[in-house]
Amino acid sequence: MVPLTIRYGQRHVRELDAAKAVVKHYGLTKHVVMDLNLTSFRSALTRMDIAVPKRGSTAEIGDDIPITYVPARNIIFLSIAAGLAESVDADRIFIGANAIDYSGYPDCRPEFFRAFETVLNVGTKAGVEGSPIKIEHPILSSTKADIVRLGKKLKAPLALTWSCYQGGEKACGKCDSCLIRLKGFEDAGYKDECQYE
Amino acid sequence: MVPLTIRYGQRHVRELDAAKAVVKHYGLTKHVVMDLNLTSFRSALTRMDIAVPKRGSTAEIGDDIPITYVPARNIIFLSIAAGLAESVDADRIFIGANAIDYSGYPDCRPEFFRAFETVLNVGTKAGVEGSPIKIEHPILSSTKADIVRLGKKLKAPLALTWSCYQGGEKACGKCDSCLIRLKGFEDAGYKDECQYE
Repeated sequence: MVPLTIRYGQRHVRELDAAKAVVKHYGLTKHVVMDLNLTSFRSALTRMDIAVPKRGSTAEIGDDIPITYVPARNIIFLSIAAGLAESVDADRIFIGANAIDYSGYPDCRPEFFRAFETVLNVGTKAGVEGSPIKIEHPILSSTKADIVRLGKKLKAPLALTWSCYQGGEKACGKCDSCLIRLKGFEDAGYKDECQYE
Repeated sequence: MVPLTIRYGQRHVRELDAAKAVVKHYGLTKHVVMDLNLTSFRSALTRMDIAVPKRGSTAEIGDDIPITYVPARNIIFLSIAAGLAESVDADRIFIGANAIDYSGYPDCRPEFFRAFETVLNVGTKAGVEGSPIKIEHPILSSTKADIVRLGKKLKAPLALTWSCYQGGEKACGKCDSCLIRLKGFEDAGYKDECQYE
């Protein structure tokens, strides 16, 4: 298993430390951290001149594609993961995308992952040679509360994980990502041990 | 129009100078050069410990996927191009992929580009909002001789372009890419003005 993290110019680069801590927790020795500067892309996550919204509760989050959408981000992430998978003869890519709870991101939907698997079938050496790389998205259709419960059951180090979109050392507790995370813990009946401002 | 070039750790990084010269020739002011270090990927183009084959003629080039295949390379390139296209509201991506003349690369075939367009339809904001990004591959089914003739007709600066897979300041004239290029010029009845060793 080879964990892959991408430093793409996200304002919340703090999530890289979180990824490293999780990798260390599981005793994995190889962790590929790939640099790709997407700060020229139009997104609140990569451009400091576009603000990440702060809200009072999840009720204020709309159904539109949010301005934190990074153009083609999961397509880029999966492409890099596919090349890495082929290079180490891995037959599967795992991605923690989630389609529920107001996310609104087109590249977090089942039809996107199906379409991308077709690309891997016809566009990679592995696919053409009959061993296509599969995409596993085990929490795609889970609610955030389900994910928290599953994490607790698996003794996953949830306190080490990171969700906040702001760039702080502690989570802001006000951005969409924080609010959705907090509500997930609340609905599941657990305390979120992530540090908040 | 925004030209995009990717410095991915290719041994023939010389092609970046070529790209810059072509951009300058056409008087384009914006040129996005993106860095992405794929030297951990298994390919003769990104790893100096895997040799690029040298041959006597194109007759020695086989039908298999060559060891110069870079895992998922065109998938990665198109993904980044898609994100850039969305960011600048471009409706089309142009790629100079070519499926003819022994190439053998799975990510240079029409079915790959069709599958990737489906990904862009379902996996990007532009696609979901009804303005999907199209992929144009104008020379996909052309022979190399056709490409040379078309370039001459359009007064394209073919002498500024680069094909060689080796890392030299002049083209080697012996790798698959050089041999296929040279044969293309010969078949078209033109002299290749690229500098060879």
